[in-house]
Amino acid sequence: MLAAGSAAGLSNSAFGQNEAAAQRYGNATRGLAPLKITDVRIVHAYPNGTGFSVVKVETSEPGLYGIGCATGIRRYKTLTTAVDEYLAPLLKGKDPDNIEDIWQTVNVSSYWRNGPILNTVLAGVDQALWDIKGKRAGMPVYQLLGGKCRFAVDCYAHASGRDLKELADSVRGYREQGFRHIRIQFGKYGSPHLSGEPDFKKAGFGVETDEVVEIRPYMKIVPEMFEHIRSEFGEEVELLHDIHELIPPIEAINLVKELEQYRPFFIEDAFAPEDIGYYKILREQTSCALAMGELFNNSHEWVGLITDRLIDFVRIHISQIGGITPAMKVARLAEWFNVRTAWHGPGNTSPVGHVGNAHIDLAIWNFGIQEQTDFRPETQEVFPGCPTFENGYMHINEAPGFGIDIDEAVAAKFPLPEEPWYRPIVRRPDGTPVRP
Amino acid sequence: MLAAGSAAGLSNSAFGQNEAAAQRYGNATRGLAPLKITDVRIVHAYPNGTGFSVVKVETSEPGLYGIGCATGIRRYKTLTTAVDEYLAPLLKGKDPDNIEDIWQTVNVSSYWRNGPILNTVLAGVDQALWDIKGKRAGMPVYQLLGGKCRFAVDCYAHASGRDLKELADSVRGYREQGFRHIRIQFGKYGSPHLSGEPDFKKAGFGVETDEVVEIRPYMKIVPEMFEHIRSEFGEEVELLHDIHELIPPIEAINLVKELEQYRPFFIEDAFAPEDIGYYKILREQTSCALAMGELFNNSHEWVGLITDRLIDFVRIHISQIGGITPAMKVARLAEWFNVRTAWHGPGNTSPVGHVGNAHIDLAIWNFGIQEQTDFRPETQEVFPGCPTFENGYMHINEAPGFGIDIDEAVAAKFPLPEEPWYRPIVRRPDGTPVRP
Amino acid sequence: MLAAGSAAGLSNSAFGQNEAAAQRYGNATRGLAPLKITDVRIVHAYPNGTGFSVVKVETSEPGLYGIGCATGIRRYKTLTTAVDEYLAPLLKGKDPDNIEDIWQTVNVSSYWRNGPILNTVLAGVDQALWDIKGKRAGMPVYQLLGGKCRFAVDCYAHASGRDLKELADSVRGYREQGFRHIRIQFGKYGSPHLSGEPDFKKAGFGVETDEVVEIRPYMKIVPEMFEHIRSEFGEEVELLHDIHELIPPIEAINLVKELEQYRPFFIEDAFAPEDIGYYKILREQTSCALAMGELFNNSHEWVGLITDRLIDFVRIHISQIGGITPAMKVARLAEWFNVRTAWHGPGNTSPVGHVGNAHIDLAIWNFGIQEQTDFRPETQEVFPGCPTFENGYMHINEAPGFGIDIDEAVAAKFPLPEEPWYRPIVRRPDGTPVRP
Amino acid sequence: MLAAGSAAGLSNSAFGQNEAAAQRYGNATRGLAPLKITDVRIVHAYPNGTGFSVVKVETSEPGLYGIGCATGIRRYKTLTTAVDEYLAPLLKGKDPDNIEDIWQTVNVSSYWRNGPILNTVLAGVDQALWDIKGKRAGMPVYQLLGGKCRFAVDCYAHASGRDLKELADSVRGYREQGFRHIRIQFGKYGSPHLSGEPDFKKAGFGVETDEVVEIRPYMKIVPEMFEHIRSEFGEEVELLHDIHELIPPIEAINLVKELEQYRPFFIEDAFAPEDIGYYKILREQTSCALAMGELFNNSHEWVGLITDRLIDFVRIHISQIGGITPAMKVARLAEWFNVRTAWHGPGNTSPVGHVGNAHIDLAIWNFGIQEQTDFRPETQEVFPGCPTFENGYMHINEAPGFGIDIDEAVAAKFPLPEEPWYRPIVRRPDGTPVRP
Repeated sequence: MLAAGSAAGLSNSAFGQNEAAAQRYGNATRGLAPLKITDVRIVHAYPNGTGFSVVKVETSEPGLYGIGCATGIRRYKTLTTAVDEYLAPLLKGKDPDNIEDIWQTVNVSSYWRNGPILNTVLAGVDQALWDIKGKRAGMPVYQLLGGKCRFAVDCYAHASGRDLKELADSVRGYREQGFRHIRIQFGKYGSPHLSGEPDFKKAGFGVETDEVVEIRPYMKIVPEMFEHIRSEFGEEVELLHDIHELIPPIEAINLVKELEQYRPFFIEDAFAPEDIGYYKILREQTSCALAMGELFNNSHEWVGLITDRLIDFVRIHISQIGGITPAMKVARLAEWFNVRTAWHGPGNTSPVGHVGNAHIDLAIWNFGIQEQTDFRPETQEVFPGCPTFENGYMHINEAPGFGIDIDEAVAAKFPLPEEPWYRPIVRRPDGTPVRP
Repeated sequence: MLAAGSAAGLSNSAFGQNEAAAQRYGNATRGLAPLKITDVRIVHAYPNGTGFSVVKVETSEPGLYGIGCATGIRRYKTLTTAVDEYLAPLLKGKDPDNIEDIWQTVNVSSYWRNGPILNTVLAGVDQALWDIKGKRAGMPVYQLLGGKCRFAVDCYAHASGRDLKELADSVRGYREQGFRHIRIQFGKYGSPHLSGEPDFKKAGFGVETDEVVEIRPYMKIVPEMFEHIRSEFGEEVELLHDIHELIPPIEAINLVKELEQYRPFFIEDAFAPEDIGYYKILREQTSCALAMGELFNNSHEWVGLITDRLIDFVRIHISQIGGITPAMKVARLAEWFNVRTAWHGPGNTSPVGHVGNAHIDLAIWNFGIQEQTDFRPETQEVFPGCPTFENGYMHINEAPGFGIDIDEAVAAKFPLPEEPWYRPIVRRPDGTPVRP
Repeated sequence: MLAAGSAAGLSNSAFGQNEAAAQRYGNATRGLAPLKITDVRIVHAYPNGTGFSVVKVETSEPGLYGIGCATGIRRYKTLTTAVDEYLAPLLKGKDPDNIEDIWQTVNVSSYWRNGPILNTVLAGVDQALWDIKGKRAGMPVYQLLGGKCRFAVDCYAHASGRDLKELADSVRGYREQGFRHIRIQFGKYGSPHLSGEPDFKKAGFGVETDEVVEIRPYMKIVPEMFEHIRSEFGEEVELLHDIHELIPPIEAINLVKELEQYRPFFIEDAFAPEDIGYYKILREQTSCALAMGELFNNSHEWVGLITDRLIDFVRIHISQIGGITPAMKVARLAEWFNVRTAWHGPGNTSPVGHVGNAHIDLAIWNFGIQEQTDFRPETQEVFPGCPTFENGYMHINEAPGFGIDIDEAVAAKFPLPEEPWYRPIVRRPDGTPVRP
Repeated sequence: MLAAGSAAGLSNSAFGQNEAAAQRYGNATRGLAPLKITDVRIVHAYPNGTGFSVVKVETSEPGLYGIGCATGIRRYKTLTTAVDEYLAPLLKGKDPDNIEDIWQTVNVSSYWRNGPILNTVLAGVDQALWDIKGKRAGMPVYQLLGGKCRFAVDCYAHASGRDLKELADSVRGYREQGFRHIRIQFGKYGSPHLSGEPDFKKAGFGVETDEVVEIRPYMKIVPEMFEHIRSEFGEEVELLHDIHELIPPIEAINLVKELEQYRPFFIEDAFAPEDIGYYKILREQTSCALAMGELFNNSHEWVGLITDRLIDFVRIHISQIGGITPAMKVARLAEWFNVRTAWHGPGNTSPVGHVGNAHIDLAIWNFGIQEQTDFRPETQEVFPGCPTFENGYMHINEAPGFGIDIDEAVAAKFPLPEEPWYRPIVRRPDGTPVRP
């Protein structure tokens, strides 16, 4: 320590007492004998028919590594190529402690930024670096972010059904598990069961897997759904709904206004990211709580929505914007405007991503709610240390770093499918492609 | 660790390998056997005729404590009372790791917030908690904030003189020390040497210590000063100036416009905090770089200036807004708008405050410049581990926490003066009180 | 008088008739043989379990002194230190007649301003100076402010209860006393009786005194409360409610919109002071009358709300902004926008503060309503000259100055408690600290 | 006093000590045995070819009366009629202490308000009531307004000349008298000497007394005038100029921009009151200090200019807006925006008006400058107690009230002329009437 200080030209002669403290609390010399990144890899696993991708950053200290979620965009092989061919060579040899510097320099290393591929692999690296830092500190990452300001992470569950009864059963199940916040949807998104063979298919337009969304039936069924669930479950449950950008902006405005009477906790994705300019109009007409963000990867998508207080919950998918580092910055921005977080956390986010969400959720003041998933046995086998749920709250593992690991041997038992995945095209009855 | 996980109902059976990591990197069980705050005290010292106040937070772990700067407002005894009578009883027994929760709850514990006294002592506690967290992590605090993204902290020095020659000599001295950024002022602020006995004093109005600022002489001398220093030192040096709110808003606008031609690095405090509404007008008329903030203690003072991009550098005095935690939030807010930091750091900020500034400066992307001071021998004796300067850069001690300590025995040799300090009242020639 | 005029070089030879008037109405020579402040002290009393702090300013004229309220922030000892160590030495020897100059110069004498401690003691001095001026003038202070434009001060009373019946009984009691305006609340604030042990306490998070507020139960009970009281008491009574910043901004908007149908006189504190940016959104969606201000201590909190006509009543706690002088300036600002006053005046404001409110209330055009308290016998014993209430109107004593005094001997019988007071931390069920 | 208190139902038993104070400082019972207004009259005088009108309010207390300026609009007989036929009957019997109430009720007593006739007589009453209140208090009125915050009233003088030499001589004269601020004008307003017989006169259009203003010659001569005076008198003198609304808005913008380089203290009346919407455009293009206001009598003329910070000095003619009461409200409004006062005070304002200006000037924080006149011997004979000037500062008489009186016997020696006065019509060369 003294030597270190001297090497840097600092006058440490009077610093004896702190030196002892330094020895007591850990090695303080990492600035001088820095750790190196020795490898960066991406590991994929596909348990239960869902693909999870995780970046692993290894260091020059034996056994010290970190992992970070790079799950979201399902262009698995592209991610692998991005990591193997571009990220790994760039990062090897760098000091993993300089997270901010790595983030900033990687972010512009391809010149063009903001994209789902490059942000995702950067996010994987970023979270892995925080994992490493937490392990070195001997602390869960939320401690580095300022410590806990709540005891656990309150979550919302996804209820759905093909009809009102199925949906009510689903809601009831989650209520019995203790959830206080439940998202209600018919079918998956929209209400495909309402439609027969769409006109465009009859006409031979499009492909087999194309889906249809009809505007009016959807706008009719959603209020009915709220009416039914509210009347059966009363005021004690918080209800959420995701429009998923399935209807034109002006009709989304009409729908949200109609839903206001059911006091939703929030209505999500009234508009596509291309249409966020409509929020100003929506906000002038309703005080229904609004959430948006899972598709965002460009700061112009969220900064104005937050500073103009046009949304109440920011729902960014953290790996889409580059990881823990930028997500914390979004949270800090949003706090000044009392906009709360509701990080994206669906079933196709890796458990590593879920614990990333959760560590932030525990630490920031302006946490709102967390989207929840449950971790199936195969998933837990791949990812030792998965969060657990009790009474609607997510609890994380208190181990250093993010408290989660990936068992690569088990992961290898769940290889990615050969076939590429495509999001089904959604069309209007005449075949017009929708951008949900 | 395992027991801890089990107690929380988590399934950790597969977590064996992380358990080893936890043992390797430190005790990870602090959520379960938390540290306690055992004492909170304020220590004052007055070496070299400057008062420095530092809050010391002690914990249940022998030898583990943190210190934080509570220097700025020179109401020393008021700060002592606030700490001894109100903060200490509130904080004893709390877990020092929950910094965010402590900040939020202390901030509203007196119901009214935002003030220079209560923010200052809260800031002392906040920085001390980060000091403790850094020591526990075995890391300098900047590591907890994301690591370094610059090698050292570029600083600006304060040159001044009673005439152009003296000022040029002062600038030359700092250039020889390597400073690239130099603030130039005549006299201290304004140009008191230009005035004789002001009219109000002749009339028996005001008191002996009152000072006078004349608008036009000040507005005339400042461009001359820039002209002289630019012509002597060329373009290689960055020049700064602090108007210190001494002239009416419209004349500040005129002065800044005139100074634009000398390419200042920034012009500081064109307006009093009550008058920040004038920035919109100023910004429309000049692209001269602008800095503001040392007097701010309410979020409505800085949020709009940043989000409307009305200033280029935010110069908050960190202990005035409550410490490291809110300062990092300001920095994060400002990053979204590419507004840079230039934290207030004059000679009457304690070395503990200076290292607080410096740790943030090293870690954030949108660092701009740091106001510098030098630490005299007596000050260094009181505060072992003071930053050092080399070639215009501030270097901090790399020890865990903030790497600085207070030697209370030495501090006791420099007691506070009995006499209270008052900022001299500044008046116009007719006696009108100015609010600088 | 003549001599005085001559000394100042004025031609007063023709002024004989006014000289007589001067002799008739008092000594007019104070500019020439000015009074001096000889002492400034703070006196605390704690009758009925409530702390009242009053600043006493004594002058060089035997028996001539003034008192001013320095009650609000319960950091009593900090206030004492601020007065004894800083204000008193600064003010001794100054002319108590120059109130504006004293206010302006004291306000910046610590450089940093706006805080709850320093504003409060400044307010105490300011009101005391007006008290002195009134006594010298032989006039109640409201006369100096322009005279009466109403015969007495219409007030609102605080009704509350643990259930609808208790609340209705409370309302009935106030109606029988003649009050036309009644604030209705369940429990104290929020509706703590609705909740059992909150989740965070079960989890061992927080401390014993922490309180919980649940958003939906509160939002449900308030409209029911209005419905019940309206149906029982009809349209003749004006009803008020204080949200006390207990729910998130968007839900406050929803609640205010729902309450509009019950025609409240005003809804108070929909948002925390940090969140006043939400008023623009609220104002676009409802014409429910709005009040805000008790937590304000920085001009940027109220100027925009008034000039943008975003609130209908400004509810500043006068000692929080520095006293009668700035409060009159707020009132004058608000008059241009027909924003009315409803000064903060709860039970824990001293009677001196209440009469300060009342003198302004009597004199300004844009008075709206006054928050009322009743003065218990012990309080009246400490403060001879307390206001009285009749038929819902507050009447003040017509003696010169503010017409109220403090009996220090009696005050000494009610010493402050040793234990510091803290506002109980309010949390959401998950432990999130709320900032009310 | 006690009886008074008892009569009002107040509990005063413990109030003995204040009762003594009440007796010491005057009769405090005026709320109970109020003074009455017994007469309201207007007195005109025409010394030195200038008409001065003063309202005199007499009371039920022998010898106690007040006077107020009702000078400005030269419709003397209309003013007399307004006072005699309407104001006097309304006011007789009212309590002169209730100034605010009288102002508010008189203001709407004709239903239509804001006009120069009715505002002027209301102003006369209002100032007279403050005069009475000051006399009753035994205090100069500035004491009731908060006391002095400057030792005297800094003034600007009017220099003018038919050519540059004459103007320079005029400036020199005022400099020698000590004035630091000097308004410079060619001719009276505009530059009539530049023109020969205008075209419209050659064509037989208009009447003999019509004047002409040519846009370009005026725009050419004003910068030359500034250039000349600046080069002769240097930077030490503050220069002002009054455009007097003589040129079209866009040319006023061009002129002000050109004058910016000469650093005027302010440029007055760039636009007619009908054209204040141009200030936004002007403000975006120049930081030249701006003043406006002498023609204002409607709040929409000044409120927005102040709250949008579009002018730097508000120059209201106080009797045009209704007197001291509204003028203080304008001053308080302007203080929040750091807009300073420069009350209108030309030679055709009565000395009573000048002392009204001065009492406000001494008391408010945001005083800027005062327009000055000098009082000729005959005027001083009519108005005993006129202000005096020394070194460019106006000093007022320190007697109670406004310290000025009117000697009606002397006034009668200077009767109004029989002929009505008309402001000369100003035209463009083609005869177009200008609205200056």
